[in-house]
Amino acid sequence: MSDRLILHEQTESGNCYKIRLTAALLGTPIELREYDITKGETRTPEFMANVNANGRIPVLQIDDRFITESNAACYYLAEGSGLVPSDRFDHADMLRWMFWEQYSHEPNIATLRFWIGWVGVDNLTQAQRLQMPVKREAGDAALKLMDEHLAGREWLVGNAVSLADICLFAYTHVADGGGFDLSRYPNVVAWIDRVRTQPNFVSIDG
Amino acid sequence: MSDRLILHEQTESGNCYKIRLTAALLGTPIELREYDITKGETRTPEFMANVNANGRIPVLQIDDRFITESNAACYYLAEGSGLVPSDRFDHADMLRWMFWEQYSHEPNIATLRFWIGWVGVDNLTQAQRLQMPVKREAGDAALKLMDEHLAGREWLVGNAVSLADICLFAYTHVADGGGFDLSRYPNVVAWIDRVRTQPNFVSIDG
Repeated sequence: MSDRLILHEQTESGNCYKIRLTAALLGTPIELREYDITKGETRTPEFMANVNANGRIPVLQIDDRFITESNAACYYLAEGSGLVPSDRFDHADMLRWMFWEQYSHEPNIATLRFWIGWVGVDNLTQAQRLQMPVKREAGDAALKLMDEHLAGREWLVGNAVSLADICLFAYTHVADGGGFDLSRYPNVVAWIDRVRTQPNFVSIDG
Repeated sequence: MSDRLILHEQTESGNCYKIRLTAALLGTPIELREYDITKGETRTPEFMANVNANGRIPVLQIDDRFITESNAACYYLAEGSGLVPSDRFDHADMLRWMFWEQYSHEPNIATLRFWIGWVGVDNLTQAQRLQMPVKREAGDAALKLMDEHLAGREWLVGNAVSLADICLFAYTHVADGGGFDLSRYPNVVAWIDRVRTQPNFVSIDG
């Protein structure tokens, strides 16, 4: 890939980290541009006109074109690599974990991490506060589903690490920041260690 | 495709309809198995052990294997067809709309439709009731983003209908059931009409 790749991101965001980790495992160089979402830096008219009308990061810039949605950006980087299974069923199964991550995992685990660690529980709206136990229960259900699936398996899909593992690793390995007790999910803990030992692995803060 | 395809579904669900519509446009025959989620028919021990541990529909069964997550099932059916762009950027751009649908569109528009049309506003929890205006605003923001993107375009990605259009059509065209006024989004209305005139189109209730 000879295009210039720029990741518009905030380091601590798991959604941004997924893309950095994918690029690292592939050995693909990307430039980084840092924003602070708590200061509204992705909601400025400039950002929304030039980078993402949805006002969100991450955004992967490819020369003068932009891919929003973290999992789509990971796919762009990894297409044709061993991180994307070529078997038709395994490929769709990888995508199902990636869609599941965005629907059933991230809105619970990442949102609680953000509310607790960035917004602060005292600053939540009443609607958000009432959602905390709902998200706690749904987040634990997501971790339990992963734990049961990973019993006797090394990776989420087939017999090799894929984007499904990378995309789910991002917020799972920092779930304690959302108040989740990972020691309840030993297969998940073992899988986290397997991801960490992949060649060229980078940590979320490095 | 010579495998036996069975869709475990509930007709009125837009997530199930996406898969029926994809199969129809492709001319791929699928068998249908109907469940009533309001009666808990997808939360039985049998269903969760044999079809989907997540207790949700749709599930696409391919012989004795299962794909959950509606958009992954659509991808399985459409892989290699004209509904999946072969260009690397367009392909990732299609996926970004599909991830965006599950993160920013469906949880707002489909959920309000379900709460209003199936659960009933009087039966909502306090947490759900407080979320209604949040989901109303986020759903309108999603429709506005689509409307602005579709100005001067026929389709969401590139110059041809793709899975992005099918997956977003499913809940957009019935958004009035969630109390959304589609007449505010004329480019979306014109795009809905374009999807409806595709060869082999089937409606959500037929």
